[in-house]
Amino acid sequence: MGPSDLREILKYSDKPEITSLAGGLPAPEVMPMDEYRRAFEWVLETDGDRALQYGPAEGYEPLRAWVAERMGHRGIPCTAEGVRIVNGSQQALDLLGRLLLNPGDVVIVENPTYIGALQAFTPYQPRYAVVPMDDDGMQVDALEAILAQDRQGAGRVKFIYAQPNFQNPTGRTLSAERRVRLAQLASTYGVPVVEDDPYGELRYEGAHLPTIKSFDTEGNVIYLGTFSKILAPGFRLGWVVASKPLLDMLTEAKRAADFNTASAPQIATYKVVEDGFVDRHIEVIRNVYRARRDALVEAIGEHFPLGVASTRPHGGMFVWAEMPGPVNAREMLMEALEQQVAFVPGVGFHPDGTGANTMRLNFSNVTPEKLRNAARILGGVIQHRLDLLAPTV
Amino acid sequence: MGPSDLREILKYSDKPEITSLAGGLPAPEVMPMDEYRRAFEWVLETDGDRALQYGPAEGYEPLRAWVAERMGHRGIPCTAEGVRIVNGSQQALDLLGRLLLNPGDVVIVENPTYIGALQAFTPYQPRYAVVPMDDDGMQVDALEAILAQDRQGAGRVKFIYAQPNFQNPTGRTLSAERRVRLAQLASTYGVPVVEDDPYGELRYEGAHLPTIKSFDTEGNVIYLGTFSKILAPGFRLGWVVASKPLLDMLTEAKRAADFNTASAPQIATYKVVEDGFVDRHIEVIRNVYRARRDALVEAIGEHFPLGVASTRPHGGMFVWAEMPGPVNAREMLMEALEQQVAFVPGVGFHPDGTGANTMRLNFSNVTPEKLRNAARILGGVIQHRLDLLAPTV
Repeated sequence: MGPSDLREILKYSDKPEITSLAGGLPAPEVMPMDEYRRAFEWVLETDGDRALQYGPAEGYEPLRAWVAERMGHRGIPCTAEGVRIVNGSQQALDLLGRLLLNPGDVVIVENPTYIGALQAFTPYQPRYAVVPMDDDGMQVDALEAILAQDRQGAGRVKFIYAQPNFQNPTGRTLSAERRVRLAQLASTYGVPVVEDDPYGELRYEGAHLPTIKSFDTEGNVIYLGTFSKILAPGFRLGWVVASKPLLDMLTEAKRAADFNTASAPQIATYKVVEDGFVDRHIEVIRNVYRARRDALVEAIGEHFPLGVASTRPHGGMFVWAEMPGPVNAREMLMEALEQQVAFVPGVGFHPDGTGANTMRLNFSNVTPEKLRNAARILGGVIQHRLDLLAPTV
Repeated sequence: MGPSDLREILKYSDKPEITSLAGGLPAPEVMPMDEYRRAFEWVLETDGDRALQYGPAEGYEPLRAWVAERMGHRGIPCTAEGVRIVNGSQQALDLLGRLLLNPGDVVIVENPTYIGALQAFTPYQPRYAVVPMDDDGMQVDALEAILAQDRQGAGRVKFIYAQPNFQNPTGRTLSAERRVRLAQLASTYGVPVVEDDPYGELRYEGAHLPTIKSFDTEGNVIYLGTFSKILAPGFRLGWVVASKPLLDMLTEAKRAADFNTASAPQIATYKVVEDGFVDRHIEVIRNVYRARRDALVEAIGEHFPLGVASTRPHGGMFVWAEMPGPVNAREMLMEALEQQVAFVPGVGFHPDGTGANTMRLNFSNVTPEKLRNAARILGGVIQHRLDLLAPTV
């Protein structure tokens, strides 16, 4: 169950009769189309020379400055110089793999972890060391044990990859205490942390937790942000905040990889965000996604059999469920597809091959009504699998 | 004189008082801004869901189909399935390096060659074998000698990289006979050719020569095209035509690298090109660039001292000059900058470190008047260097 299996599921689940909780897409109905239409019109009328020409590999300076200011509000003081624009966070992951990894090096990841990160890193042939999670995210004691062992041994750990907010796939959030500890460990062991934060703004309850980078005193934390979840993914715009030496290397690698990120979308995005639109717009997204999360979580509570553990994420786009041990999610999927419901079995998110009894459920791009119906069907499928597995009496 | 030196020159030559023949930029005045403005308006009014969402890693299907049809007119019969969209040809070069190269492998390149290709390949740690050029382009006899030697030896040659039309930096074009021979050699030795053709459409005289790929019967040739020179580089849109197995690998690598090329620019570009606009527009570009080439070539003939060999390209954006052996182009550049003229010394385009007496002159983004003045100044600088070098009598 690798990325290509995932794509097969997604292709199959693209059919209109299927209710798909398999995807990981933002909902088009909360994307700011009119704002982008007006922004592109403005850009191509007033700044066409720049919009159509090659641009700087670092990114469009006013957009970088806007991001820098926003980062300041997340406890990450920086200037435009400290921000680089990339083709979505995925490009940052790829470039970081290129810069930091040699074959046989070790990347520490949460277990389960984001499959796109595995896709980005795996071409550089690292090994993965996995840290178990609980409801407070990555277990930092286990992380320290790995770091300590590595220091005494081969010293092959090159970085720690983490999604601290509403993680894909689990929806879990790293606790504030553990964030402090993670930053300290990075410093003590001199190992960078890649803090991948695509969903941080999509919080539906509670207060923002401080970023890991806000505890970073030595430039050990590499922060990745994106416009994909707060505006739209179709323009492929993400950003990186890191130490200057790393950013300079990243920009060199970016130049070699594709010169620069497309100019017009960067300028148009700046035009969309410059007047404070983003905060109003994020409220809209939050309200829509919160209602969807609520619908799914409530329906799971109503329909899933006892013994299924599922998350109630405070934000993001995913709920995670762990079925009783013998229930295999791939077998479940076959049965669910017969009833027109799709999801992603969780095994592919586990670099250690565990997780056969887990599944990821997306709620951002499905209406509440369909989510409720899908949860009812999935509950029935789980119960059916349990019945099949139960000893006959 | 590597890529970063080149960037230093370009930065310096960005000053308004400098007449820069150092860049490699298309002229903004021949970029279709109104067409793109209308296209984006249309896209965001009628196809916003698709334009703002993630898209297929292969590229937007109608754009791929349009490219496929155009390729058919260049002797490359193919369908949309045989075309993949990338973030400019530069991304294709990077992904090909990633797929085809291991450290110590050999890439065969023209000498001099395109510096962006060296930038893309060098992170994968290849060695370069260089093939000398003459006015008919790469000397294929010398190429065959390298291939034959490699076959008897380590077999480390992984591909041949060539710009057959109006090559950057020399402006030279590979003759039709040599194209046939190159395709044959690729087949005989089982070594792929990367045919990088950014300037092919920008022909100012004579008839198009057949593409190398048009002689390819076994899928050995990987063809790279781009919208950067016929529409605008700011959207970072290029394409790859190659065998299906290679394209499938390329798409996997593209997914890992950045998921997909931005959706809206692809759809807008399709909207711009679908009605036959491109051919009319290329005529406009050709007329502007032809006049610039003529101005530069004529002024060189008038002002450069005897003993300087320069090219008269039939298309593209660059003229190349070789000064008498002892004249050093970097020293020349210092003197030229004092007189407000910039160019790129040619040594950085030579992987073998030769070419100290060569320079590249861009004409696409400079007005005829400024080109004439720059050639006059450069002629004076060359003469001055020659005078300094002459034995005193």
